[in-house]
Amino acid sequence: MIKKIFISYEESIERLKLLRKGVCSYERVALSNSLNRVLAEDLIANEDSPLYPTASLDGFAIKFIDQKDQYIKIAQNDNPAGNDIRQTLQNKMAIKTFTGSIMPINADTLIPIENVAIIDGQIKITKSVSIGNGIRPRGELYRAGDIIIPKGTKISYVEIGVLASLNINFPKVAPKPRVAIVSTGSEILDLGEERTTFSQIRSSNNHSLEALIKNYGAESIQFGIVSDDQEKLETSFQEIINSKADFIVSTGGVSVGDYDFVSETLRKLNFEIILHGVKIKPGQHILIAKRNEQIFIALPGFSLSAIITALLYLVPLINDRLGLPFEYKKISAFLKEKYYKRSQGKTEFTPCNLELINGKLEINFSGKRVGTSALLTNMLNSPYLLYSSELDNDRESGELITVYSLN
Amino acid sequence: MIKKIFISYEESIERLKLLRKGVCSYERVALSNSLNRVLAEDLIANEDSPLYPTASLDGFAIKFIDQKDQYIKIAQNDNPAGNDIRQTLQNKMAIKTFTGSIMPINADTLIPIENVAIIDGQIKITKSVSIGNGIRPRGELYRAGDIIIPKGTKISYVEIGVLASLNINFPKVAPKPRVAIVSTGSEILDLGEERTTFSQIRSSNNHSLEALIKNYGAESIQFGIVSDDQEKLETSFQEIINSKADFIVSTGGVSVGDYDFVSETLRKLNFEIILHGVKIKPGQHILIAKRNEQIFIALPGFSLSAIITALLYLVPLINDRLGLPFEYKKISAFLKEKYYKRSQGKTEFTPCNLELINGKLEINFSGKRVGTSALLTNMLNSPYLLYSSELDNDRESGELITVYSLN
Repeated sequence: MIKKIFISYEESIERLKLLRKGVCSYERVALSNSLNRVLAEDLIANEDSPLYPTASLDGFAIKFIDQKDQYIKIAQNDNPAGNDIRQTLQNKMAIKTFTGSIMPINADTLIPIENVAIIDGQIKITKSVSIGNGIRPRGELYRAGDIIIPKGTKISYVEIGVLASLNINFPKVAPKPRVAIVSTGSEILDLGEERTTFSQIRSSNNHSLEALIKNYGAESIQFGIVSDDQEKLETSFQEIINSKADFIVSTGGVSVGDYDFVSETLRKLNFEIILHGVKIKPGQHILIAKRNEQIFIALPGFSLSAIITALLYLVPLINDRLGLPFEYKKISAFLKEKYYKRSQGKTEFTPCNLELINGKLEINFSGKRVGTSALLTNMLNSPYLLYSSELDNDRESGELITVYSLN
Repeated sequence: MIKKIFISYEESIERLKLLRKGVCSYERVALSNSLNRVLAEDLIANEDSPLYPTASLDGFAIKFIDQKDQYIKIAQNDNPAGNDIRQTLQNKMAIKTFTGSIMPINADTLIPIENVAIIDGQIKITKSVSIGNGIRPRGELYRAGDIIIPKGTKISYVEIGVLASLNINFPKVAPKPRVAIVSTGSEILDLGEERTTFSQIRSSNNHSLEALIKNYGAESIQFGIVSDDQEKLETSFQEIINSKADFIVSTGGVSVGDYDFVSETLRKLNFEIILHGVKIKPGQHILIAKRNEQIFIALPGFSLSAIITALLYLVPLINDRLGLPFEYKKISAFLKEKYYKRSQGKTEFTPCNLELINGKLEINFSGKRVGTSALLTNMLNSPYLLYSSELDNDRESGELITVYSLN
């Protein structure tokens, strides 16, 4: 048994920061597969958009000054969108022009169809407009050389539309970091396995972690469950190391009990321990180790502790490799009920609800049960963790307090 | 040309509500494929969890009253997690017990390993604990019959963990509604197509809509671009109808211009018009039609208008079929700068930024350009739409105003 040294949460994050590498490589994906991937390059416009002044509504292209005459003659040819010859407007003439059409040369104004009456091949202006009306000028959307979307942006349906309009078929994105997952514990049954002894419980950690990893944009490599036995653990860990995953995440086997072999196995496999034991609740027994480029994160076995520590220590590293911000967005919100500090001298992370009442953000704990790290259900509908520092104590209703936003 | 009758936004939503059907069917998916799917049944616990009192930390199982003696003898056999025989604790004895172990019969208290010294096969209690310490009682997590996750819940990594712990391998989920997409317009080039005339512009609508549809949990069927010609349109629409999509979404071809054939084609194909023209900005020319069970939503062609109207009219119908709330969450936030009403007598939806400052939610428009419906870039980083009703006018900085949250 090697004695753990419990460090502060702040110190643990400083050590975690030393494991940052940023985006080391890139890959190209088809635009239709790029949703939720992260751009690995700035997107720069190669030409103005629109490239020509363009009609933004249906009407007649005219010269502004010709509005002083009550009637303007309609030119013979229309100007439909997609027309391949750019027409030239003659003085005292009007060309019928449609939404999306390039404006004729010399036309400086588009009078909407609703503002005219058509009489004997002429338009009669019933309501005049200002100069430039109904025209999107060249470069209105963007100009050549503009950074339209910076690298490190997660691609949503909006970015996909913008990429398509730039004719970018295969955007450069950050490769997905690969995360291997294994659950340890002799008492753990995998999904669908039949119970053979009364004390077995279902593993949920390997499944919730797989989904969490996918959710945060990484790829998961599932290794299932390994029983809590030194020899089996070593063989399995060696196999998992061979997967060349960037990160290996285990759950269980990091507390102080005799049956907790994970840290010893890692030492045997020549991992360097980055941290083992942090003054946080839940998840104080967390262990992070490193060998060559591979990072091993041993999470506690209780499901809520496993998920919260994965959020605190794994997700920032995934974000780093994707080019996303390393730290969560921290927001301030008003406590709607008293917050009881349960673990003096520890940094606490507590699932909470946020509700927006008249523009003010309020924290409550409705539906959450306190006092155990086993209650993964506490995280249902709860992408927020209340943060209470090592030095904090109880906080009263009405106080402004920090919340980590996990989205 | 059939004349449009512009209705109010409120009236348009009332008509949209008549198209609701809810979840009409279900399917089962493997748990590992269930991320972001929507549960189609309540998840009810079939047994208490934990089923037996369980140790929540490493230590010694004892009787509470035995703490009055300074020393307690350690039983020969440990009680590791996963043990298949439930032991019985004798009076004035202590059984070494590990996190996750079922508590021995008769043990009512777990004294943590940190609270004892081990001397000559006995524990010496250095710090006593209260009764029940370190034990998760039967049913602490949930009891048989409890609804653990209600139907209509979108499955996140948390729900996957809970489902796994319930041994639910193939949850019942709402089938993905199928949405066919087509862009109309002669001036439109698809991704990668070479420009042949100067006026052509890249289509982004079919791609952004495909991603939007996936993002909101539906399946997309891509039909690309059809040129704005009555005959081609009719043939294409017939093919798209044959896809048996639940919803068909087109972009372009719904304004008042002569080259806008969509509404006439739909009438020809015996669609019943549900609405055509709504007093909203952007997207006033929207058309929704229905034939048998198929719903056709013709969106305007400008990219920002197309996305905003898809969010306002398509997404609620997708949500309905998935069992999610039909309406967006509406939140109130404080204007940080003046809001200029641009279209009197219309309901306006304006992309905006929300920032949380000291627990107060503030609206700003930084990075947004005003005055055109073509600027899809206005939606970048902007999952919020400011809502300004038909009767609203300019609003001053500091006022509380409604925002639609699109997440």
